[in-house]
Amino acid sequence: MALAREEVGLPIVTEVTDEESLPLVAKYADVLQIGTRNAQNFNLIKKVARVGKPIILKRGMSSTIEEWLMAAEYVLLEGNEQVILCERGVRGFDSYTRNILDITAVPIIKHLSHLPIIVDPSHAIGKWRYVIKTSLAAIVAGADGVIVEVHNKPKEALCDGAQSLLPEKLEVLIKNIKEIEGYVRNCG
Amino acid sequence: MALAREEVGLPIVTEVTDEESLPLVAKYADVLQIGTRNAQNFNLIKKVARVGKPIILKRGMSSTIEEWLMAAEYVLLEGNEQVILCERGVRGFDSYTRNILDITAVPIIKHLSHLPIIVDPSHAIGKWRYVIKTSLAAIVAGADGVIVEVHNKPKEALCDGAQSLLPEKLEVLIKNIKEIEGYVRNCG
Amino acid sequence: MALAREEVGLPIVTEVTDEESLPLVAKYADVLQIGTRNAQNFNLIKKVARVGKPIILKRGMSSTIEEWLMAAEYVLLEGNEQVILCERGVRGFDSYTRNILDITAVPIIKHLSHLPIIVDPSHAIGKWRYVIKTSLAAIVAGADGVIVEVHNKPKEALCDGAQSLLPEKLEVLIKNIKEIEGYVRNCG
Amino acid sequence: MALAREEVGLPIVTEVTDEESLPLVAKYADVLQIGTRNAQNFNLIKKVARVGKPIILKRGMSSTIEEWLMAAEYVLLEGNEQVILCERGVRGFDSYTRNILDITAVPIIKHLSHLPIIVDPSHAIGKWRYVIKTSLAAIVAGADGVIVEVHNKPKEALCDGAQSLLPEKLEVLIKNIKEIEGYVRNCG
Repeated sequence: MALAREEVGLPIVTEVTDEESLPLVAKYADVLQIGTRNAQNFNLIKKVARVGKPIILKRGMSSTIEEWLMAAEYVLLEGNEQVILCERGVRGFDSYTRNILDITAVPIIKHLSHLPIIVDPSHAIGKWRYVIKTSLAAIVAGADGVIVEVHNKPKEALCDGAQSLLPEKLEVLIKNIKEIEGYVRNCG
Repeated sequence: MALAREEVGLPIVTEVTDEESLPLVAKYADVLQIGTRNAQNFNLIKKVARVGKPIILKRGMSSTIEEWLMAAEYVLLEGNEQVILCERGVRGFDSYTRNILDITAVPIIKHLSHLPIIVDPSHAIGKWRYVIKTSLAAIVAGADGVIVEVHNKPKEALCDGAQSLLPEKLEVLIKNIKEIEGYVRNCG
Repeated sequence: MALAREEVGLPIVTEVTDEESLPLVAKYADVLQIGTRNAQNFNLIKKVARVGKPIILKRGMSSTIEEWLMAAEYVLLEGNEQVILCERGVRGFDSYTRNILDITAVPIIKHLSHLPIIVDPSHAIGKWRYVIKTSLAAIVAGADGVIVEVHNKPKEALCDGAQSLLPEKLEVLIKNIKEIEGYVRNCG
Repeated sequence: MALAREEVGLPIVTEVTDEESLPLVAKYADVLQIGTRNAQNFNLIKKVARVGKPIILKRGMSSTIEEWLMAAEYVLLEGNEQVILCERGVRGFDSYTRNILDITAVPIIKHLSHLPIIVDPSHAIGKWRYVIKTSLAAIVAGADGVIVEVHNKPKEALCDGAQSLLPEKLEVLIKNIKEIEGYVRNCG
C-alpha cells in the first residue's frame, strides 16, 4: 500500500479492527478508520486516538446521533482533534436497501458539533445505481465529502460488487460534485 | 378555503381522512391527500381515486418501498393516473428526530416507477432548523418538489410549530431551490 | 358465517376495513376487529365503536405503546368500553420473521391500563414452528388470550399458510395453555 | 472478586472489553462475556475464545439472528464449544423501553442451533417492573436461563438502578422459575 501511495500520490485510509494490527497500520496509513462494528468499542477507539493520526469514525449500525458524538468524545479526550465522522446508514426495516442512509444526520452534526462529516452511500444503500444522486444530496446537505466504492469489474469483485461504481461513473460523480460544491459555497 | 384560493391564486391540497367527508373535500380541493395513517387503508384510497383529481399519497410510517408502490397501484387501477408520491420519513430508533427522512427513496422511486415524488422534511424531522438543507438535498436527489410547514408565529402554532419555517426562511428556501434546480437540469 | 356460528357454536370475529361494509359486518359478527393497517384510522375506529359490540384493536405496524392506547381512547370516548388490545408484532430489521413480537407489551399494557390484551404470534412471526412456544410465553407474561392461524392443509392455503398450525398442533397448544394458565393463576 | 467467589460459592461472569485486560479477566472469571457493543468485534471474540473458558455472547444491538449465529461461529472455529447466546433486546422505535426484547429469538435459536440461550430482560427493557413476567415468558419459550439485574438499594445504584430488582423480588422470581420449569419439562 505504501508503494501504491507513492505511485498515485493519494493518502491511504485503512480500517483498524484490533489492537494487534494497530502498530502496523499506524505506520503506513495516513488516516485510521474505525468501522461500524467497532463504533462502540471504546477501548479500541482510545488506543487508535493515541496514535495521533486523523481518524474516520463510522457511525454504528444503530447508533443514535448522541451515541455517535459520545464515541467521538473518546477520541477528543485523548487529545486527538482530527476526527472525521462518517454516516454510513443505519439499520432499517426495508430490505430493498442494505441500510437506510440518514442524510439528515449531516446538518444535525453540523449544528451540534464542529467536526467534519462525510457520507458513505455505497455501504448504506448497497446498490450502485443510487450512489451518485445520494452523494450529491449529501454534499448539498452540507457534507464535507463522500466515500464511494469503485471497481473496474464490479461483477468480479470479491465483495461489495453490487454497490461499486465503474471508474467512468466516478468521473461523472466527481465532475458533478465540483459543480454543485461551487453552488453550495455561493448560496451560503 | 375556496375563498382563500381565489384571493391568493394557489391550488388547495387537503387530506381526506374518511369517506364521509370525501364529497365535501372533493368539491373544493384541487388535490386530495392520503395521509400516512391511511397509507394502507385501501378502501379509502380506491374511493378517493375515483374522484378523478390528483392525489398525494404519503408513505406509511413503516411502509417499504414495495408496499408504498402497491398502494399507488390501487389508485392507478381505478383509472386515475395522477398520483404524486410523498416521502415523509419512516419510523427510526433515534428520538432526536421525529422520523428518519429516507432521501434514497427519491432515486429508487424514479428508477422503479414513472410517478412523480415529493418530499416532506418538516414532518419527517420535526425541527425547522434542518428543513432547508434536507429540502435542497431532496431536490438534488431528483425530487419533483418539497412540502414544508410554514407559520408566521411558530411558537403560537396549534401544532407542528417546532418544525415550521418562518416566512422569510421559506423565501430563502425557494430562492435556493430555483438556483439548484437550474443546476440539476444542466447536469442531467 | 352466521350459519357456521349456529353449527359450531363459536362467536365470530370479523375485521372491518371500511365504513361501507360496517352495517353488514355489524349485523352478523359478534366481535369487530380493527386491523393493523387501520390502527390509526380514527374515523373508522369511532364509527366501529358506536356499534356497541366488543372490538379487537390490533396494534399498528409501528405504533408505540402510547399511540396504541390513544387509539383505544377513541373507542372509550364513544362510550364503548369493550376494547380488547391485540399485540401482533411490530416492524423490525430482521427478515427472518415477518415482524418482531413484542411480548413485553403485555405486562406494560397490564400496568398502564385496565384493558384486556391478547397476542397474535402467527402474524407477528410468520412461521408456524415458533407459534406454540411464543403463545405460551404470552400467556405467562399475562396475556388474556392468543389468536393463532390454523389450517387443515397449510400448503394449499390461499394466504398465510406458512404461519398456520395444523389442527392437531392447535390441540397441543390448547392443552398446554390450560395447564400453564392454572400455574399462572396459582403463582399470582 | 475471587474472594467473593470463595465466600458465596457462585461462579463469576465478567465482560471482556479489550485484549489488554483479557489475561487478568481470564485468570479469575469462570465465564467470559462479550458485550453487545463488541458483538461483531470478531478479533476480540476469537481471542476470548482461545482462552478456553465458557463464553456468554450477547446479541448485538441490531444483530439479525444470522449475524448473531455467525458471531458464535467465530468461537466454535477456535475449538471452543462452550458458547452461551444471550438475547438482550434489539433497537426499536418505542422509547418507553430501552430496547425491544425479542423472546421469539429463543425458539428460533433452539431450532437453528444446538447452543444454549439465556435472556437478559433487565437491559432489554430498562424497567424492573416488567422483568419478572418477561423472565418467566423467556423460560416458557425455552430459554436455558435468565440474567437479571439486582440491587439492594436501586435508587442509589451507580447505573442501571431503574431496571434492578430488589433482592426479595429476585426470590419471588427464582421461586416462580422453579415452578414453571417443572411445568416446561413435563409438557415436553
